[in-house]
Amino acid sequence: MGKQTMAMILRDESALYYECGYSCDNAILLKLGSEAWFFTDGRYAVEAEEALQGSELVIADDILAAAAKRLKKSGVKRCGYDPKEWDCHRFGRLDPKGKITWKARPEWSHKRRMVKRPEEIELLARAAKAGAKAFDRIARAFSEEGFGKDEYALHFLAESILRKKGKRELSFVPIVAIGPNAAKPHAHPTKRKLKKGDLLLLDAGVKVERYCSDRTRTVRAVKGFDFGTIQGFKSRRMQKVYDTVLRAHDRAIDKARSGMKARQIDALAREVIEKAGFGKYFVHSTGHGVGLDIHEMPYISRRSGTKIADGMVFTIEPGIYLPGEFGIRIEDTVVMRNGRAEVL
Amino acid sequence: MGKQTMAMILRDESALYYECGYSCDNAILLKLGSEAWFFTDGRYAVEAEEALQGSELVIADDILAAAAKRLKKSGVKRCGYDPKEWDCHRFGRLDPKGKITWKARPEWSHKRRMVKRPEEIELLARAAKAGAKAFDRIARAFSEEGFGKDEYALHFLAESILRKKGKRELSFVPIVAIGPNAAKPHAHPTKRKLKKGDLLLLDAGVKVERYCSDRTRTVRAVKGFDFGTIQGFKSRRMQKVYDTVLRAHDRAIDKARSGMKARQIDALAREVIEKAGFGKYFVHSTGHGVGLDIHEMPYISRRSGTKIADGMVFTIEPGIYLPGEFGIRIEDTVVMRNGRAEVL
Repeated sequence: MGKQTMAMILRDESALYYECGYSCDNAILLKLGSEAWFFTDGRYAVEAEEALQGSELVIADDILAAAAKRLKKSGVKRCGYDPKEWDCHRFGRLDPKGKITWKARPEWSHKRRMVKRPEEIELLARAAKAGAKAFDRIARAFSEEGFGKDEYALHFLAESILRKKGKRELSFVPIVAIGPNAAKPHAHPTKRKLKKGDLLLLDAGVKVERYCSDRTRTVRAVKGFDFGTIQGFKSRRMQKVYDTVLRAHDRAIDKARSGMKARQIDALAREVIEKAGFGKYFVHSTGHGVGLDIHEMPYISRRSGTKIADGMVFTIEPGIYLPGEFGIRIEDTVVMRNGRAEVL
Repeated sequence: MGKQTMAMILRDESALYYECGYSCDNAILLKLGSEAWFFTDGRYAVEAEEALQGSELVIADDILAAAAKRLKKSGVKRCGYDPKEWDCHRFGRLDPKGKITWKARPEWSHKRRMVKRPEEIELLARAAKAGAKAFDRIARAFSEEGFGKDEYALHFLAESILRKKGKRELSFVPIVAIGPNAAKPHAHPTKRKLKKGDLLLLDAGVKVERYCSDRTRTVRAVKGFDFGTIQGFKSRRMQKVYDTVLRAHDRAIDKARSGMKARQIDALAREVIEKAGFGKYFVHSTGHGVGLDIHEMPYISRRSGTKIADGMVFTIEPGIYLPGEFGIRIEDTVVMRNGRAEVL
């Protein structure tokens, strides 16, 4: 049996949405050659019927039992699955008698989704624009009413702008960090209050029709500040670190080419930071793919041999984190087009 | 080897917190007789060191590899795990050479946590009080500025009060539903706007030191309304359904006794609704346990043979859902004490 015709069973919401135009929080998709079955429960019957493309809808209280029955009825002998999508309990129920040869296909869906279609790039561009607009609104709100407020309150204010008071979904829980708290790449809010002149880091993204945006800016928060990349810090050390991160960010975007390996793009940013003597403070990868999930392939990391191609969408987000002092990260999402990286 | 000394490997955050007083989003706990190892990565080293009780901290970039190494070093031959806590990918990495006999222990942690300790009941009571207070605040806010707003905006307003603008965590995403939308037990917000006299359902809970609250009220929203259980609807049919749900709720709480099976408590509520002719519109169980997780054991369902005991904490939440018309649910969280159910 060729790759095309091997059965595949999927559970992840983004994977399902990509394959058949619909997903919900209790669903399974079984692909078998050109046929497909979508299993969900009665709560989703109406929506699923309307949105499903190219697969047969099966409504069942116990979708695992229903999928197991279909596997048996179709006489499936070998079936692929992504071991990250399945917990041991659910997986065990698909084939209780052990009749099927299961083939682990790690990242099956992420691999299929790595090169985006034009209509996906369009949605990712719209998400990026909506995210950037929210950053502008947050800058105005923080400038007007943010000074004296703690990170909890600033976080809440940023979130309410990003979410448009409940009308929009977020790509992830945003990060709002002041001064030394920004030295933690995944900072949680604290009681630290924003003072004029403080370093402020904002990492946030929104969704447009399920596609994610992702952006980070680090700024000097003064009256009337904006989240542009031109920033003037009072401290020379802070400015030196900022300029280093910005140069790393700009170099990776300017010099990234389709045909490179992902680790070469990581190196474009990392070399700048290493040469400036901050290599050991750049504690993460240069970027990650963005699509239906906020973290997808390609991973722009030191070890990744993934060949970069037109249509891939990923972040460039170098950072320098000086524990106890401060942290700086600058992030944009880019699409590879005509061999080069364009900021979305 | 007896039950006490069999090794057990845990991954769920609530399970870890219960066993050793700390958890985070990248951790594993291995219990081996009286010894225990807690594996996490460097980001959590400081917090974990401070909070961990009775287990040895192991910091590792790859916590699965570290746990596998420890299992091997300790010569573990048999090990228990909850198949719902482990995805196939991670589970496979614990024992790549297949040297261990794995024993599935479904709901291992939930079973241990079913009867709450006095200090846990204290926290659950505090959470319930904080939740009830938030309901009062939401009633005032909706009464003052809610009419004319859609469910998205009302949802956002309710959430901002429940979350105290970012200072408190929620037990779950709240449900705010008007009229026919309340006929869906898990309604999502729509553009429907709140008018005076509308039926309004609110289902929400907050956390106090990680312990959850859970409560639902259905009311007639008029100027100055409150979320009490005494409600007067204009429609006789609505009032009849409301009174039926309230009687079912009150009867289950009044007549629940330690020593009963969970399904007998379910029946206390269900019988009232069935006798009134609405049996087929009560589409879910009467309740579920509440603790570190919002849904735990005991499940107060038609099929559950769990014997109810003092110290158990669970919801009583009968409902009637008339598709296209409206839905009514009334929910409180109770603790079994001196053989009876007390509302928290």
